[in-house]
Amino acid sequence: MTNSAYISGVAMTRFGKQPERTIEQLGREALLKALKDAGIERRDVDEVFCGSLFGGTLIGQRILRDLGMTRIPVTNVENACSSSTTAMREACAAVAVGRAETVLVIGIDQLTRLGGGTIPLEKTDIEVNLGFMMPALYAMRARRYMHETGATSRHLAMVASKAHEAGALNPYAQFQNRVTPEEVLAARMIADPLTLQMCCPTGDGASAAVLTTQKRAAARGKPVRVAASVLQSGLYKTGFRDMASSELTQRTSKLAYESAGVGPEDVDLAEIHDAFTIAEMMYYEALGFCGKGGALGMVERGDTSLGGVKPVNPSGGLLCRGHPVGATGVAQICEAVWQLRGEAGKHQVEGAKVALTHCTGGGISGLDHGACAVHILMT
Amino acid sequence: MTNSAYISGVAMTRFGKQPERTIEQLGREALLKALKDAGIERRDVDEVFCGSLFGGTLIGQRILRDLGMTRIPVTNVENACSSSTTAMREACAAVAVGRAETVLVIGIDQLTRLGGGTIPLEKTDIEVNLGFMMPALYAMRARRYMHETGATSRHLAMVASKAHEAGALNPYAQFQNRVTPEEVLAARMIADPLTLQMCCPTGDGASAAVLTTQKRAAARGKPVRVAASVLQSGLYKTGFRDMASSELTQRTSKLAYESAGVGPEDVDLAEIHDAFTIAEMMYYEALGFCGKGGALGMVERGDTSLGGVKPVNPSGGLLCRGHPVGATGVAQICEAVWQLRGEAGKHQVEGAKVALTHCTGGGISGLDHGACAVHILMT
Repeated sequence: MTNSAYISGVAMTRFGKQPERTIEQLGREALLKALKDAGIERRDVDEVFCGSLFGGTLIGQRILRDLGMTRIPVTNVENACSSSTTAMREACAAVAVGRAETVLVIGIDQLTRLGGGTIPLEKTDIEVNLGFMMPALYAMRARRYMHETGATSRHLAMVASKAHEAGALNPYAQFQNRVTPEEVLAARMIADPLTLQMCCPTGDGASAAVLTTQKRAAARGKPVRVAASVLQSGLYKTGFRDMASSELTQRTSKLAYESAGVGPEDVDLAEIHDAFTIAEMMYYEALGFCGKGGALGMVERGDTSLGGVKPVNPSGGLLCRGHPVGATGVAQICEAVWQLRGEAGKHQVEGAKVALTHCTGGGISGLDHGACAVHILMT
Repeated sequence: MTNSAYISGVAMTRFGKQPERTIEQLGREALLKALKDAGIERRDVDEVFCGSLFGGTLIGQRILRDLGMTRIPVTNVENACSSSTTAMREACAAVAVGRAETVLVIGIDQLTRLGGGTIPLEKTDIEVNLGFMMPALYAMRARRYMHETGATSRHLAMVASKAHEAGALNPYAQFQNRVTPEEVLAARMIADPLTLQMCCPTGDGASAAVLTTQKRAAARGKPVRVAASVLQSGLYKTGFRDMASSELTQRTSKLAYESAGVGPEDVDLAEIHDAFTIAEMMYYEALGFCGKGGALGMVERGDTSLGGVKPVNPSGGLLCRGHPVGATGVAQICEAVWQLRGEAGKHQVEGAKVALTHCTGGGISGLDHGACAVHILMT
């Protein structure tokens, strides 16, 4: 596949609890700002994709209607936490195949009003129905990872502290306060060894991106190329072998590196799915940033902090920017684009030329995820 | 866009009330039969799209998991009644852009267990919240159409009777009984002038199609080409002007005819969205099968009956085959493929070479729909 899609505009709302607004209002805010960023009008949009888990039927059309953006193809996509990055992939295909010249992608969810912290799973999923929810699952994975690598609770706390350092610099982040590793360790226990700040919050928000052809994007000044857009599903293995690693993320990112013609060593910054701090550490390894157990050293040395050799989640990540499920994937794209343009403000990674985003979610029966999407963006 | 996608296999479950099964079981039945029809194995599928309104998160992955069909991209699509035809369109793009060689599309819903007859609409939709549900809306449109054209309740009853004539010949249909126009007129009134048999039923079912390249499809013997795959959204007009016509269906089908290089006169059979008998009559006109008011004559002459000059819904349509929302679009594709292959059995349209399918749904605030998809298939 020729990856000929370019990003000419991005925007997002601030993430956080916003029950006083409607979900459509959140979407319209992100949409209008993204069009402005791309320097285009509503009538210039040929097609729209909307990714959401809890938005309900025709969420895209409901956002567009009051803006008079009618009479165009609108497709709603659901893939749990990867809903809007899956929508991104379809938008890339629409541009690549010549079906549309300007495509808008929206990511959105509002957990204070719709859905909630628990994904509605099938009744036959015995493990989840017996209480094996996400925090419990990641707590068990953390314990296994600690057993295998010698990691301690302090490493998990340092990841949270790093996220807050970045989040404090991001005006769109749900949490903008700094916390020390000691404060993280002293916080309320959610699922041992995961304390409150080691788990991402729920919240509301929307994000949007404008995809277009190389020619049209060039007019924007700083076009960003989608060098890879890869989606994969998990093995759905049951049982608990290899629970301290992520085969799905490893496989998906490998395909993305091949598609973009780069390797993990070329990545200047990454936005990854740190729903729990242990997840971030496992993904360092799955994404090829280090070998098995290498995440400990990366955390200890501050490699993945802002200013480190391999900044991860300079936005604050899911832990601090927040995680309104469907909105997260395109919010990662927003951050990557701002970084590549040199417009990330106080959380800028200097000289960034290659950015990777990673979303994965929808756990069913244990360790695996239903949808993992990795994008690689380049200037 | 080069429409290079071909259909090499199709299948569906019988439609109807099947609360004793899980939705995943319904999906697996259609999926496995479609693979068999295409002459391929599970491992040959490169990518999957699943269209559903009420299926819930990761419905596609949940269907695939127990079949061991993992480690491939899976995308779930929602567009109300047009969910699985929207998924079809994305599958066509995936093949056309060279992202995948063999793509499986599933359409599914199970209204006896999940969701229901009423689409969950936003709380701000005042008209629907005051009782302006689909049957009420179509009853009003019917009254207006009768006023404008001179149509009578008998015409509406004749459309239902025609649907039952076809459904009686279709082993997959929810209703397989014949009814006379007199019986339709004497049935329980749902929303005057629409009686019970003038409204489609709710039910459960799944449908599946295998899309692939021309080369691979040719190996199947009777490949069917997707000559047009068009999606549009409505105007979302409020108020009640032009309520006896469908601008959205007219616009979408016009684009589809242009894409396929054919006109309404070339269509040998059509599967259209007859959620109510009045809708079928309006769509004859919107699809260009006749001019304004021409539907009366078509019904009176039996033009759209099996054996008529322009057979419409030889499957029995939504009225008789049934309407498990997300499953309907790909079920129309199944019928079109069987007709073009000459495999439709007792409801075969002899010598069919061009088939049109039309799905439209997701009414918000009155007359317009959120998503209309028209496909044109050719041998």
